[in-house]
Amino acid sequence: MLSFENDYNVGAHPMLLQRLTETNLEPQTGYGLDDYCAAAKEKIKIACDCPNAEVFFLTGGTQTNQVVIDALLQRYEGAIAAQTAHIALHEAGAIEFSGHKVLELPSHDGKLCAADLKAMMERFFGDDSHEHMVCPGMVYLSFPTELGTLYSKAELTELHAVCRKYDLPLFIDGARLGYGLMSRACDLTLPVLAQLCDVFYIGGTKLGALCGEAVVFPRGNMPRHFLTRAKQHGALLAKGRVLGLQFDALFTDDLYFKIAKNAIDRAEEMKEIYREKGCRVWKETPTNQQFLIVPDDDLKRISSQVAYSFWEKFDETHTVIRLVTSWATTKEQVQKLRDIL
Amino acid sequence: MLSFENDYNVGAHPMLLQRLTETNLEPQTGYGLDDYCAAAKEKIKIACDCPNAEVFFLTGGTQTNQVVIDALLQRYEGAIAAQTAHIALHEAGAIEFSGHKVLELPSHDGKLCAADLKAMMERFFGDDSHEHMVCPGMVYLSFPTELGTLYSKAELTELHAVCRKYDLPLFIDGARLGYGLMSRACDLTLPVLAQLCDVFYIGGTKLGALCGEAVVFPRGNMPRHFLTRAKQHGALLAKGRVLGLQFDALFTDDLYFKIAKNAIDRAEEMKEIYREKGCRVWKETPTNQQFLIVPDDDLKRISSQVAYSFWEKFDETHTVIRLVTSWATTKEQVQKLRDIL
Amino acid sequence: MLSFENDYNVGAHPMLLQRLTETNLEPQTGYGLDDYCAAAKEKIKIACDCPNAEVFFLTGGTQTNQVVIDALLQRYEGAIAAQTAHIALHEAGAIEFSGHKVLELPSHDGKLCAADLKAMMERFFGDDSHEHMVCPGMVYLSFPTELGTLYSKAELTELHAVCRKYDLPLFIDGARLGYGLMSRACDLTLPVLAQLCDVFYIGGTKLGALCGEAVVFPRGNMPRHFLTRAKQHGALLAKGRVLGLQFDALFTDDLYFKIAKNAIDRAEEMKEIYREKGCRVWKETPTNQQFLIVPDDDLKRISSQVAYSFWEKFDETHTVIRLVTSWATTKEQVQKLRDIL
Amino acid sequence: MLSFENDYNVGAHPMLLQRLTETNLEPQTGYGLDDYCAAAKEKIKIACDCPNAEVFFLTGGTQTNQVVIDALLQRYEGAIAAQTAHIALHEAGAIEFSGHKVLELPSHDGKLCAADLKAMMERFFGDDSHEHMVCPGMVYLSFPTELGTLYSKAELTELHAVCRKYDLPLFIDGARLGYGLMSRACDLTLPVLAQLCDVFYIGGTKLGALCGEAVVFPRGNMPRHFLTRAKQHGALLAKGRVLGLQFDALFTDDLYFKIAKNAIDRAEEMKEIYREKGCRVWKETPTNQQFLIVPDDDLKRISSQVAYSFWEKFDETHTVIRLVTSWATTKEQVQKLRDIL
Repeated sequence: MLSFENDYNVGAHPMLLQRLTETNLEPQTGYGLDDYCAAAKEKIKIACDCPNAEVFFLTGGTQTNQVVIDALLQRYEGAIAAQTAHIALHEAGAIEFSGHKVLELPSHDGKLCAADLKAMMERFFGDDSHEHMVCPGMVYLSFPTELGTLYSKAELTELHAVCRKYDLPLFIDGARLGYGLMSRACDLTLPVLAQLCDVFYIGGTKLGALCGEAVVFPRGNMPRHFLTRAKQHGALLAKGRVLGLQFDALFTDDLYFKIAKNAIDRAEEMKEIYREKGCRVWKETPTNQQFLIVPDDDLKRISSQVAYSFWEKFDETHTVIRLVTSWATTKEQVQKLRDIL
Repeated sequence: MLSFENDYNVGAHPMLLQRLTETNLEPQTGYGLDDYCAAAKEKIKIACDCPNAEVFFLTGGTQTNQVVIDALLQRYEGAIAAQTAHIALHEAGAIEFSGHKVLELPSHDGKLCAADLKAMMERFFGDDSHEHMVCPGMVYLSFPTELGTLYSKAELTELHAVCRKYDLPLFIDGARLGYGLMSRACDLTLPVLAQLCDVFYIGGTKLGALCGEAVVFPRGNMPRHFLTRAKQHGALLAKGRVLGLQFDALFTDDLYFKIAKNAIDRAEEMKEIYREKGCRVWKETPTNQQFLIVPDDDLKRISSQVAYSFWEKFDETHTVIRLVTSWATTKEQVQKLRDIL
Repeated sequence: MLSFENDYNVGAHPMLLQRLTETNLEPQTGYGLDDYCAAAKEKIKIACDCPNAEVFFLTGGTQTNQVVIDALLQRYEGAIAAQTAHIALHEAGAIEFSGHKVLELPSHDGKLCAADLKAMMERFFGDDSHEHMVCPGMVYLSFPTELGTLYSKAELTELHAVCRKYDLPLFIDGARLGYGLMSRACDLTLPVLAQLCDVFYIGGTKLGALCGEAVVFPRGNMPRHFLTRAKQHGALLAKGRVLGLQFDALFTDDLYFKIAKNAIDRAEEMKEIYREKGCRVWKETPTNQQFLIVPDDDLKRISSQVAYSFWEKFDETHTVIRLVTSWATTKEQVQKLRDIL
Repeated sequence: MLSFENDYNVGAHPMLLQRLTETNLEPQTGYGLDDYCAAAKEKIKIACDCPNAEVFFLTGGTQTNQVVIDALLQRYEGAIAAQTAHIALHEAGAIEFSGHKVLELPSHDGKLCAADLKAMMERFFGDDSHEHMVCPGMVYLSFPTELGTLYSKAELTELHAVCRKYDLPLFIDGARLGYGLMSRACDLTLPVLAQLCDVFYIGGTKLGALCGEAVVFPRGNMPRHFLTRAKQHGALLAKGRVLGLQFDALFTDDLYFKIAKNAIDRAEEMKEIYREKGCRVWKETPTNQQFLIVPDDDLKRISSQVAYSFWEKFDETHTVIRLVTSWATTKEQVQKLRDIL
């Protein structure tokens, strides 16, 4: 069975397991105060070209979104996000659990647009009763988005400018950050992205780690007592070394970017195959998530040979499916997919 | 430098890393629905002699306490615990974060006592204004306790009976469960413990795993939508396999118990040394946490050779320190400690 | 200055003040256990034709919505509401504060429609990842709506049927309930409305009381420990008598309905005036809230003589304003408005 | 039946009802932006001798504690209070509901002591693991306490100094403030009290109002967006005028203090009676709450003639009861009590 259902279906990049094994019996301080967390932070700061950055490691994506958003917001504030955002749809209300409303804006292929944001803020402050409403306190966006799309540098710059104007911290969910940055369509680099937001995270779970996300506050702007806040959310790992070491390995010799590029190269090969085979593409994306419209009759056959994600019904007789490559996808697997499609 | 400061200062038991490496590239379903979670659950059910048990894997201790307690309690209820309980002191208010008060009872060497619990419940229901008070909704205890002590079967049976009488679910925090069950002073087995409570967890982080705790509802009594609840807390690991596989290995060939016994054997050797050397013991414990009263003058010398935990000041010139053994502690390390003390 | 800006701009119906004065020095038990609360509950049960109803008095609308919704929902559940619902827009995130997401459906003139609700539930259960989403746990609607519109008996029956099918409690926010029931367009009675939902409240603040809302659980279905829950929200009034006595007066000799009818009669007179004067009506409503489109040039003059609510900009040169009648609005005031328009 | 069970068993001081009646039909802006709230605020600022004070009116005591404490604290902070504090015992967990732990200190006749507070802070910062603990973020105390006792100026000054040293806002719950300030034992005035804390409230519910508490931030230090925060808690009254007008009346011609003095004078008369009759006093207090130890045999007779509060069992054959005077207690009532005792 071929596996293209998501980018977290296998374990870790072998180098990470090797490093975990090599360092296994060294005693280390707990809770992220170990040597490997320290080393990883330094490497990430260099990769981001942010010498004053503060970095904190958490375990998973929803947890990271909950902890970061709750730390950025005042109690009476909400987080602005696209209607298709992960925090709006697929995190079981983790943001509301911590007391904050997700203030939804329309999705443009998964993206927020600066004009909508500006209009929302003008409407809010223009409303006589805005003190009776949830105060917009920050902006959340995903890069790449949940639909595999990317913000251009121009788009992100424009959003960032509106955020500055209204003093809204901008948080970028980078669960799949590497796949975005390595996309052939991407005109952003990690240092540029770090300049255009107030906090972001570098996803490990979907990009070579067993688990782990690196939260980066680019300008020494980590909220005070962040460790305590994380602990209060049940999000502080005792063996922080496990996270630190994995990011240390990922940011040694550009491993993070190299393995992200593999997913992009495989995805581009798949796009070739779609063209060759005349597959119907639902949404053309420049990253590792691909969406096809498949006749339901074909789907039965395909599903016996390929694991994919059901996305939604397209019409009475067709279905949208998602195929995903990852750091671990091989050329051979793509070729086998070709034979099946 | 010798390391006796805690039981989570090294990585995982080598067998767990080996198994993670062997299975690394097998595609598996996410979120705990993989084959290894399934296999581990079966093994745990057998070890507990609870054929109807439901098992759920979470990542760390505070997280587990927060998710389980919030799932057991009604919104207006609180959790009864000893004043020295981890949830009362060292979890940064994670229980209050989810809206629940920790209702404290006196600590008897770290333990709750049935008479106190009964008195609390009688006082509560005897109080005219109890509808204006936090309703006691469950009981939390640690086995072993935060002070390394153990409940006897008789003590736990008595507490369980009071819980039954007042319809209070009893939750046992087993962050160090193996060290308790393997203690030479323990008259409980895992199946008996499972009978005497409503939910407990088998700690992995402090007992051979990189991370991971196995929550066991012994009688098919897992609260509905527990996965959604965990997700809402940011506690659902995408690669659940990482947790499942580690517990699968720990519950294969009694590995969990064998490595727990190692910590106990080393701790007993240390107790011999204290006697031999005339060390002043602050609290005699039957598990892997040992507490000594050390003259501050000696402490300077010791601290350059041994990592320990500061516990509290004993008096003007003495300090209580904690020395902890683990599954990874060797006979050689204990001998070196002997030479230093 | 004429006052048509809202229906809570004056104090209480004089009869309520008179009763407060008459009974002022009688000692009464606190927290809603007094004689007047008891009497009011009996009268409300009769008015609703619900002999098994349970009634609880709270102080204000947002408070009532927060307490009731939090009591109805499991921790991981959300409340379905129209995008224009008060809880979605104008309660400063009080629902999210208590941990619950407001799941929004399109507004049809302020109303939910059964087909949308059914589609949402089918989509939810049809989604493979629905366990990662907020579980719809209840339905909230306002009667009349925030736009002054009304559900017909057929519409409410249809919504109620979908709620039954999916086991969703239906909660009706009756902040302006009397104005809805007395509307000439209303084909519902209080007993029928009580049959078609699981809980509703009878608004006092906007209908003759200084403050106070009566929450009605029509079939003895008040959540357990509701008093404790209210207290936990800071919503339990010490002098519950103040609320009880006002509702006792409002439900004596049909006062509640008589004074609601006054607002409707005045509103109908205003609609006559619009027709006569050729005013441009933005939204025709059958209740006490009226919406007009006014040229901005006229608005300056009007605003010096009439207090109204700004609703929204209609276009570059026009504004939508809201004019509201209440139990206290007089024929004279409406005549003066006629002269101004 | 004589009523001495509490100080909220009757309605409002007649002057307040008269003013509510006189102003009843004047249209006023909602949500505390009316003329009466404005006037009351000015009078309170003068009474406190705090020209820069900010004042906000809320409805009840538990609500006020919840809103103020949540506004003062960071998310990860807790509120220090005596074990006997209202927020620790009798508010159904309202503080924990908003996510904050109540950090308990011993009660000295209901009072906190500066030495305990200092020791707690030293212990906290001296603990290596304090980042894993709830961070003390403010101090709460009641004046008078729940046991009717009073802080002297010296005691409060000392507490305030420790608060300054550790940057802890000090919040005084003045549910019965007037009874404290008018006590013959009180060496504090309202302006002095305002200097010695960061926020306090002037209780109305127990001191002549139907409902209402006036929160005072003495030095323009009201947290930003306080109205929105109150709304989010469901605590913003639509007809804020009801609260404002009552406080306007209470702070006209020193009514608040005059009626508080009545309660104290009556309480002193009661103390005379205890001496004369040889009643056994459980706790001598200088305010309007009196505690007697009564043989259970007598209690049956007494309870048929006097409403009192059960406090606690004293021993097998005696009970502690609480007798409370209020602004409304008359000399005649005290004389009748004399005849019964």
